[in-house]
Amino acid sequence: MMGKKLKWGMVGGGQGAFIGAVHRMAARLDDRYELLAGALSSRPEKSAASAAEAGIASERSYLHWQEMAECEGALRRAGQGGIDVVSIVTPNHLHAPVASAFLAQGIHVICDKPLAISLAQAEMLQAQAARSGLVCVLTHTYTGYPMVRHARELVRQGAIGELRLLQVEYAQDWWAGGPAITGEGAWREDPAMAGPAGTLGDVGVHAYQLAAYVSGVEPSHLAAELSTFGHGRVLDDHVQVMLRYANGARGTLWASQVATGCENALTLRIYGTHAQLRFEQENPNELWLTPQGGAAQRLTRGRVQGQDALHATRIPAGHPEGYIEAFAQLYRDAADRIQAGGRGSTPEGLLPDFRDGVMGHRFIQAVLDSSHADSAWVSLA
Amino acid sequence: MMGKKLKWGMVGGGQGAFIGAVHRMAARLDDRYELLAGALSSRPEKSAASAAEAGIASERSYLHWQEMAECEGALRRAGQGGIDVVSIVTPNHLHAPVASAFLAQGIHVICDKPLAISLAQAEMLQAQAARSGLVCVLTHTYTGYPMVRHARELVRQGAIGELRLLQVEYAQDWWAGGPAITGEGAWREDPAMAGPAGTLGDVGVHAYQLAAYVSGVEPSHLAAELSTFGHGRVLDDHVQVMLRYANGARGTLWASQVATGCENALTLRIYGTHAQLRFEQENPNELWLTPQGGAAQRLTRGRVQGQDALHATRIPAGHPEGYIEAFAQLYRDAADRIQAGGRGSTPEGLLPDFRDGVMGHRFIQAVLDSSHADSAWVSLA
Amino acid sequence: MMGKKLKWGMVGGGQGAFIGAVHRMAARLDDRYELLAGALSSRPEKSAASAAEAGIASERSYLHWQEMAECEGALRRAGQGGIDVVSIVTPNHLHAPVASAFLAQGIHVICDKPLAISLAQAEMLQAQAARSGLVCVLTHTYTGYPMVRHARELVRQGAIGELRLLQVEYAQDWWAGGPAITGEGAWREDPAMAGPAGTLGDVGVHAYQLAAYVSGVEPSHLAAELSTFGHGRVLDDHVQVMLRYANGARGTLWASQVATGCENALTLRIYGTHAQLRFEQENPNELWLTPQGGAAQRLTRGRVQGQDALHATRIPAGHPEGYIEAFAQLYRDAADRIQAGGRGSTPEGLLPDFRDGVMGHRFIQAVLDSSHADSAWVSLA
Amino acid sequence: MMGKKLKWGMVGGGQGAFIGAVHRMAARLDDRYELLAGALSSRPEKSAASAAEAGIASERSYLHWQEMAECEGALRRAGQGGIDVVSIVTPNHLHAPVASAFLAQGIHVICDKPLAISLAQAEMLQAQAARSGLVCVLTHTYTGYPMVRHARELVRQGAIGELRLLQVEYAQDWWAGGPAITGEGAWREDPAMAGPAGTLGDVGVHAYQLAAYVSGVEPSHLAAELSTFGHGRVLDDHVQVMLRYANGARGTLWASQVATGCENALTLRIYGTHAQLRFEQENPNELWLTPQGGAAQRLTRGRVQGQDALHATRIPAGHPEGYIEAFAQLYRDAADRIQAGGRGSTPEGLLPDFRDGVMGHRFIQAVLDSSHADSAWVSLA
Repeated sequence: MMGKKLKWGMVGGGQGAFIGAVHRMAARLDDRYELLAGALSSRPEKSAASAAEAGIASERSYLHWQEMAECEGALRRAGQGGIDVVSIVTPNHLHAPVASAFLAQGIHVICDKPLAISLAQAEMLQAQAARSGLVCVLTHTYTGYPMVRHARELVRQGAIGELRLLQVEYAQDWWAGGPAITGEGAWREDPAMAGPAGTLGDVGVHAYQLAAYVSGVEPSHLAAELSTFGHGRVLDDHVQVMLRYANGARGTLWASQVATGCENALTLRIYGTHAQLRFEQENPNELWLTPQGGAAQRLTRGRVQGQDALHATRIPAGHPEGYIEAFAQLYRDAADRIQAGGRGSTPEGLLPDFRDGVMGHRFIQAVLDSSHADSAWVSLA
Repeated sequence: MMGKKLKWGMVGGGQGAFIGAVHRMAARLDDRYELLAGALSSRPEKSAASAAEAGIASERSYLHWQEMAECEGALRRAGQGGIDVVSIVTPNHLHAPVASAFLAQGIHVICDKPLAISLAQAEMLQAQAARSGLVCVLTHTYTGYPMVRHARELVRQGAIGELRLLQVEYAQDWWAGGPAITGEGAWREDPAMAGPAGTLGDVGVHAYQLAAYVSGVEPSHLAAELSTFGHGRVLDDHVQVMLRYANGARGTLWASQVATGCENALTLRIYGTHAQLRFEQENPNELWLTPQGGAAQRLTRGRVQGQDALHATRIPAGHPEGYIEAFAQLYRDAADRIQAGGRGSTPEGLLPDFRDGVMGHRFIQAVLDSSHADSAWVSLA
Repeated sequence: MMGKKLKWGMVGGGQGAFIGAVHRMAARLDDRYELLAGALSSRPEKSAASAAEAGIASERSYLHWQEMAECEGALRRAGQGGIDVVSIVTPNHLHAPVASAFLAQGIHVICDKPLAISLAQAEMLQAQAARSGLVCVLTHTYTGYPMVRHARELVRQGAIGELRLLQVEYAQDWWAGGPAITGEGAWREDPAMAGPAGTLGDVGVHAYQLAAYVSGVEPSHLAAELSTFGHGRVLDDHVQVMLRYANGARGTLWASQVATGCENALTLRIYGTHAQLRFEQENPNELWLTPQGGAAQRLTRGRVQGQDALHATRIPAGHPEGYIEAFAQLYRDAADRIQAGGRGSTPEGLLPDFRDGVMGHRFIQAVLDSSHADSAWVSLA
Repeated sequence: MMGKKLKWGMVGGGQGAFIGAVHRMAARLDDRYELLAGALSSRPEKSAASAAEAGIASERSYLHWQEMAECEGALRRAGQGGIDVVSIVTPNHLHAPVASAFLAQGIHVICDKPLAISLAQAEMLQAQAARSGLVCVLTHTYTGYPMVRHARELVRQGAIGELRLLQVEYAQDWWAGGPAITGEGAWREDPAMAGPAGTLGDVGVHAYQLAAYVSGVEPSHLAAELSTFGHGRVLDDHVQVMLRYANGARGTLWASQVATGCENALTLRIYGTHAQLRFEQENPNELWLTPQGGAAQRLTRGRVQGQDALHATRIPAGHPEGYIEAFAQLYRDAADRIQAGGRGSTPEGLLPDFRDGVMGHRFIQAVLDSSHADSAWVSLA
């Protein structure tokens, strides 16, 4: 019902920004949010136009996010309908300061990854988040897929036995070609805005988080090498990592944005003592479970009866759900949790939060350290 | 912007109805509709609860669709915000009368297929639609997929040469099992509500329409057999048809809801003198083009540059779009057309309308005729 | 052991004939045959050259198959090492007369399909074969695949329940293109040599036999249409058939050699009350079993433990076996049976024989009849 | 012709040895070899029985390979039909001494990999091979696949541009389960017979050789980690390696025999500046070529017109060839080369020889060194 919708604001995501539009589609899909305020762009003209297009009243279209945080916080305290929750879809370097400012106003936060531009910044923000008691979601989109959640549930139920091997890879080709990026995405090539990690922070942390999310465990050590293929590029565009787990398991993480011919090829394979699991993001309605020595089974969204998968499923098997639905699931879970005072109907751990952000930065830092040390093994503890 | 949204109503689609919820998600995705009125159920209690959940004000939640048509028409004439467009998601037998009533009030119509329960009824409705000048959309969902539209564009551009063979199939298994349907979907087994066609009208017409949509041509004759496997079932649950085209091409259409182990397996294969095209609904982000004697090419949404595909694409390649997005495309195209006074930015023919409905009923009637005549060849002219 | 090899001859299969070379590779693979005699070509020069290349001594290289039958028969009766078994790889019209001549000499026969050029001829030959007590194999190659045999075993064990639907198709594109065939294969376009069926006899009977082999049942009636797309072609190059089974099951058979972009796409799908089976010849090391409403399972050669599959498996799972191995299996089974005096270690029914040939001609005749009668239903009884 | 067959012997490969039987099937397929002598087993009873089954006359069934080398060499020198070529399919530790003994007798050698049990031994053998001028083939089976050769040809023709990334993996699960190996394969767990490398030497070198064969380049450095998961196992059963190439390209090699649910999953992916290539051994009749930003193309054996692929193709597209055919190709190429006095019709480099063996041991040694040094980068130069 209209009355139950969350009052919602957005920082970043003006016209031309792919991810801002995705956030809005995702939020609308399940109709739990009403977009009322925004600081969509730091350029006045674009900010106004973007707000108008998004249906935000001009008086709540802000040019500066600090102003937005303060005004909306004041509206809340005054009982005048300030936003309940804000989404942050800015360049990386603003994630933490913006989140901090809204948390300080008692406003829940949905933030794109990476959470910050350093581990220290991420830890500080997570500490603030923990003190606040507010709902803080990090949009690791792929955790919204029903079959990813089903994979996680299968692992927790013991379906694969003890973890032995893990292979995760995230390969794109959009950075393989020509010249430097210009326009909307140009900040991705600037360490001051993107942070010290390129591909590592853009897709590497997705791969790392997905592996930990499904397997339920992080590696204890890693040995890594960062590479840069693009002419004139400063940040890494290619990442390869070897992983050691405390129980003796081994693994590999590969992330690349110069992998010719790849679209968005995020694939996770886990090999336990009993069975193998395989998930490919480009075919998200299926999950492959292969018992040792046996026949591979194609488990499908809408057919599998696991409660975590069903919780994230909207339509019947054979009617594909996709990326926007996965994104929407994070929004739906966030709404549930916010409206339930922080607990929500979504089981603990299904919805990535700022702890995942700190985990991601520990990973980024360890990869940077190892790569600088000629791929020496580095502890993640 | 809010002000630009279409005022929208819905007949049918109360709580528990899968397709009603899909319509609402599809309409929200691109934010072009505001749901203001509805006759969501003929049962008073359910109607009220469904309206409340959908955010419809109680004074515009109607128990009877006739009343809704009249009241909303009156509001329109009075300049008091009556709906611009209505979606019809009732059992089949109500499609035509409801559509007719709203057209009579000057209200645009988005209607589920099949359009009617007889060819005569469909033709009468289409005549009314043509006279009205209103936008009348038939929700052949699969035409909303970018790669279906790309296939159509390739055919029109001559990429496959002259049509020689066509194989289309639509296989589901949900009717294969146990007892008769009860609850929400029970009307599907009742000819008075479903019409004279079971699987034929439910998925057979989807297959037929898809084949005609992509190939650009209808067969001239068919020979068909309907079968019923379910115990106590009256209507067909299995359809097989041989097709002849005027140019000598040949084809097969197979539709079944008792195809054990199938989810929603709609597949179209077209073989021309130059190349083959293959589309599988369960993998809708790809389309296969194979030149005679050559290598199959996997064309993907977001990579192919055809304008019809791009028009229906929201997010980059490798980020799967699915069924809801395809459905949303019909809503977006309908909104474009309504707001452009019936012409719209969507090229003629991309958006299925009531002419597709008449075509579907010609097909249904021909299959019924042929099947009754022991599979004799029957003309579709 | 050398001493245990069968003495073997071949009629047809001279230089340039694809299938003759395949027979020889297949026979060599398991080392059960020694090629000692042949009438490889009716052209003297080619006959001699082909024999030399195949390692046949010149005195046992015959120009006429009648002479070969008589001489080899005489050698046998004289205990002078006449051949035990002959393979027939001629154009279709010679299959039956050649087979008959060798049977008359007490020589076992391995014959390519179709068995004859008419049903009457096939029946007469089968009668002779039955009287002779000799081993008579028809090379329906695809029955040699382990996973085809496993599919058959699963059906017989009740894994799919009762048969409901069957879809079989065999699509090639090699006849889709340009001009008439010249050279080695030219007889395929000449009814006097190919018989009255083109694609129907070439690949259609393979599809029909495979369906019957796996399902264990033949249809009772069919309605069919033959088409010819090639300019100046006399025989059919495209076949579509609807099938009725006595138990109410339904099906479709599609065979085409003008299916643009297809290589050798023989696919069988069977839907029973409990489960679906799917086999694709181009991926012969796997078989898909999908229970009603459940997860598809990929069964693989070398992993599945069915005895019929294991009997036909040479190397471990993941090491692909292919077409030649399937062919070799027929040779191995034939050798087993011949050396065991007609019974052999291969279970009854696994190895296609001349009864399959008669079955194929009943099918061909029924398709011709139905097609001539504008696709009327025709009984197969 | 019989007269043209090579006189052939075999060391190892007695009854129960999978790979010995594969060698014999492979050699028979193209009929270029006649098996005349063997030392198939060091156990007298088994040796005799194996020889009889393989059709080897008892006087040329040897118990000791040294005796066989000397006797066959003497027969050659005496012009009494000693073997031309020997195949070596023993446990690893005998490869080099056996090969050396036969080379010393002027007999060509076909040897299983790894070539030796140390780099030094491999180098010594290669030096002897080079001096001898004899044909020395190392059975890197996967180089016999037409589509692997086509991939190599495409790379050499510049189809992928400059190499940037390479991912090769070889995953099996047969060592993942239970207890130690007993029987025929037990030597694999004994460093004295298998050498210092387990999975590394068994499948790791296949992966490494395949990558170098197709890409045309070896890495300059690697960082590796060996692991052992099997209880009581001494040798590695899991290998992960990071690769650096001199031109700046990067890569990963993963080899495992404890990868639950994997059969024989050897996969090579190469990413150049222009295009990507992907080959999966379990589907060897296809090769995927994806241009940067474009549509993946499925190239198939029998359709692609590259001369290296055609050279290794026996039957038409769509009729799958498999592992035995790939193996047979090595035998056919070896026969060509032997009969042409060491040059042969097979282009230089297509047929792996002892230089590949030395390369493999350099790789093995570097991986052992790096793994012992906690994955430090080690030069391969």
